[in-house]
Amino acid sequence: MKPYSLAVKAVILDESGKCLLLRRSAASRNFRGCWEWPGGKVDQGEDFASALVREVREEAGLEIEITGLAGVTLFELPEVKVVLLCMEARTAGAEVRLSSEHDAWEWAPLAELSRRQMPRVIRPFVLAYARRKIRR
Amino acid sequence: MKPYSLAVKAVILDESGKCLLLRRSAASRNFRGCWEWPGGKVDQGEDFASALVREVREEAGLEIEITGLAGVTLFELPEVKVVLLCMEARTAGAEVRLSSEHDAWEWAPLAELSRRQMPRVIRPFVLAYARRKIRR
Repeated sequence: MKPYSLAVKAVILDESGKCLLLRRSAASRNFRGCWEWPGGKVDQGEDFASALVREVREEAGLEIEITGLAGVTLFELPEVKVVLLCMEARTAGAEVRLSSEHDAWEWAPLAELSRRQMPRVIRPFVLAYARRKIRR
Repeated sequence: MKPYSLAVKAVILDESGKCLLLRRSAASRNFRGCWEWPGGKVDQGEDFASALVREVREEAGLEIEITGLAGVTLFELPEVKVVLLCMEARTAGAEVRLSSEHDAWEWAPLAELSRRQMPRVIRPFVLAYARRKIRR
């Protein structure tokens, strides 16, 4: 039976309601060229909130504060089923510093997420979140 | 800042679409008399799927197989914010054995969940899940 794994992503929103997107570089194992919220796997022995703060620090050089729940989705990779937990967050930091995993970043309006290339497995979830958030 | 904690619950569905509910006993610290899906906190160093299998074994004496995602909600307790991740599951087991934490169990039709007493903080989420599931 395929095991389950937990991953976390941060929807870092600025004061104008834009969210931070990172573009996966050629150095990434999969989903190259796709845009995504920063985040990653929860390591063994790590709680999800610490994992999220760590991943955002590693991938974007930003310190975040988690502010709420964005949502959850499930997708399958060849080896594992991934529960992707997305949390809303804010940052006082201004300067994004990327790791080798990404080669571009952007503060994107939620209404424009549908124009960005994204992994097929999470695209419907991301766009549904953006629609709900814009309506509020 | 209030810390975040992860809890997991199992929506164990039988072949007729009923789900297992447990009623919190007088021995429970809070939400006494409320009905709930089995589950509990993810311990430090434990992955969420193992935690869920363990909690259902402890609370209901059943071995489960996780089959998919039910959804997620967030609520606040005095000391902590809880992300409650709910997974659908099935069991080959037939005989429920309760711990002291609960004093009754029932296989409840999803359409009847609204008639059960539930913690106010998760009731809207549970009923929204049931409505979506019934429509499918």
